[in-house]
Amino acid sequence: MPAFSTPVDPVALTADLIRCNSVTPAEGGALVLLEDLLTKGGFVCTRVDRGGICNLFARWGRVGANRTFGFNGHTDVVPVGDVAAWTHDPFGAEVVDGWMYGRGATDMKSGVAAFAAAAIDFVQTTPPDGAVILAITGDEEANAIDGTVALLDWMATNNEAMSVCLVGEPTCPNVMGEMMKVGRRGSLTAYFTAKGVQGHAAYPHRANNPLNAMVALMERLARHELDKGTDHFDPSTLVITTIDTGNPATNVIPAQCRATVNIRFNDAHTGASISDWLRALAAEEQEKTGVGFDVKVTISGESFVTPPGALSDMIAKAVQAETGVAPVASTSGGTSDARFVKDHCPVVEFGLVGKTMHQVDERVEVAQIHQLKAIYSRILTDYFA
Amino acid sequence: MPAFSTPVDPVALTADLIRCNSVTPAEGGALVLLEDLLTKGGFVCTRVDRGGICNLFARWGRVGANRTFGFNGHTDVVPVGDVAAWTHDPFGAEVVDGWMYGRGATDMKSGVAAFAAAAIDFVQTTPPDGAVILAITGDEEANAIDGTVALLDWMATNNEAMSVCLVGEPTCPNVMGEMMKVGRRGSLTAYFTAKGVQGHAAYPHRANNPLNAMVALMERLARHELDKGTDHFDPSTLVITTIDTGNPATNVIPAQCRATVNIRFNDAHTGASISDWLRALAAEEQEKTGVGFDVKVTISGESFVTPPGALSDMIAKAVQAETGVAPVASTSGGTSDARFVKDHCPVVEFGLVGKTMHQVDERVEVAQIHQLKAIYSRILTDYFA
Repeated sequence: MPAFSTPVDPVALTADLIRCNSVTPAEGGALVLLEDLLTKGGFVCTRVDRGGICNLFARWGRVGANRTFGFNGHTDVVPVGDVAAWTHDPFGAEVVDGWMYGRGATDMKSGVAAFAAAAIDFVQTTPPDGAVILAITGDEEANAIDGTVALLDWMATNNEAMSVCLVGEPTCPNVMGEMMKVGRRGSLTAYFTAKGVQGHAAYPHRANNPLNAMVALMERLARHELDKGTDHFDPSTLVITTIDTGNPATNVIPAQCRATVNIRFNDAHTGASISDWLRALAAEEQEKTGVGFDVKVTISGESFVTPPGALSDMIAKAVQAETGVAPVASTSGGTSDARFVKDHCPVVEFGLVGKTMHQVDERVEVAQIHQLKAIYSRILTDYFA
Repeated sequence: MPAFSTPVDPVALTADLIRCNSVTPAEGGALVLLEDLLTKGGFVCTRVDRGGICNLFARWGRVGANRTFGFNGHTDVVPVGDVAAWTHDPFGAEVVDGWMYGRGATDMKSGVAAFAAAAIDFVQTTPPDGAVILAITGDEEANAIDGTVALLDWMATNNEAMSVCLVGEPTCPNVMGEMMKVGRRGSLTAYFTAKGVQGHAAYPHRANNPLNAMVALMERLARHELDKGTDHFDPSTLVITTIDTGNPATNVIPAQCRATVNIRFNDAHTGASISDWLRALAAEEQEKTGVGFDVKVTISGESFVTPPGALSDMIAKAVQAETGVAPVASTSGGTSDARFVKDHCPVVEFGLVGKTMHQVDERVEVAQIHQLKAIYSRILTDYFA
């Protein structure tokens, strides 16, 4: 374990975390390291492990404080992919020309390091009238079933609660400070199977081609405008991700085919309303053609938004003070653990530039780690002022 | 070799041929057996082998006779498939309850046996003023590149010609005598590849989904009526046989996808006119969407017809005399070697009931083999009368 001293260096901490091989579901030493550091920094730590996943809950201050500021983040990372394609050891945290390389450099060991360092320094130097919680998971990149959800479940059972929560995911597309996320669109995937009647290609009247019904349905879906966007959201999107049949014979009409559709939906819809709509269209096509449709829908998350207000204003002010850039409040992008937190308290996401996340040669600008810690520190100060 | 005696028994000859394992491209002894038999029956035989395929040309009478009646057929067969599923040895020619079992029983060792037997008996008993040609190939079921085409090439080079030709393929769907084929629709297969721009499913505006363009194109094709049929043909048909993408990721817009379309077209079209139409539609979709379309077309055969006339009338008369059934002149079904013969002389196809062709437990009603020989004999008599 590195020696403990304040102020905590967020760059050294990021490097220490990168050197832990914590590809989901491996803990890799990352949470052990943070638990040690936070304990020395005055936090009461509890390991909340579930389903083979390790998670860390840390609190400074008393349970049930009136004002409790929460940070959420993850130490697990996606696989490195083709190691040979990396120009630096993905678990080496090498620094070259001001950039630190490694898996998790932006997503999001730097974010965890920045908020852990900011939180420890803050409670050590200016103990607030309230509590600070860090809820750090080892299961965000994979199924996210036993990660932040496990932490939130455990917190509810133990009367632990956050008044507000800041998720430290990288949120800036290109320039440090330019974007925070106040919500996310919902996401669902629909799996269609069309079942017709097989036959010889020379006698289509004796068969019932499932592909005709499938292309008619998919063409309708692809053409459909779900909405034009709402107050806080971009328009919902619908994407056909695959259509497959696997029929190698050019003289045979296949018996069935499959298609998958992914929908990112805003607050004009719910997972249920979209599922109903998809099933209704498939039923119409079935009625019209006699081709049977089987529709399975997996809802990854509903849309949510923490409408711009006190929390986002405070974060925007801190970001602008440290970077000179006013962050826009966006709801773009994929899903994050904020979708679980939002059921418990207002939640906003802010972190550094995520450009290289999940890529070969993932890297973070060292200066941005310092900036991020400064922003998080300022937010803590402002929140408890 | 079986002993030679007339009249030739077409049932014994069918059984002898079934016992030859002549799955394309194997000769399996079938053509050797026929060459021996036909030579003994007074025919001049020439093996016309090409590209590893064996073919047999046999002529009775002189080269360049005014009236030359030709028979065409094949001794190669499709694979047996799952041998365990057969209730009888597929190369055993077992007879049970009046049915002979075996691969090629209907398609078309019985047809070849019937016309070989009819031809030998005819020239032995009533030598005609003219010639009889048998053009028998070992490559009809597979690529058909070195089969009947090789025979016709060799015949052209050697001044051998048929005045008319009867192809002995099974042509009756259910009842002996009910159908002859006076032509076939053409057949082509078009392979479409759509190339778009890959991307994340959450940001479709940064990608260009090839599936949207593909389903729009396929939906148009599936809806299109090529024609309403012509004097001698059913309507042309278009079948989407497969659409494939192979994208396992529900959050990724794929870079490309493929689709295959099979078209059976009548004499309102040509392979070239349909190819042009398909390419034009793909180009329209490309113009509209920016998705690149690659279109490859394989034309298996153009449509052709020997309009009902002297040849089909003569065959119909013989069929009705022997079976009591008046055959309809059809152009339905897949392709056959008649598509090659039609460039040289009028050609009609007539044979027995083909119901079990290419299936497990392929079988022929023994009585139908005798009927078929009788029909072919009557046609020879009538032709040279």
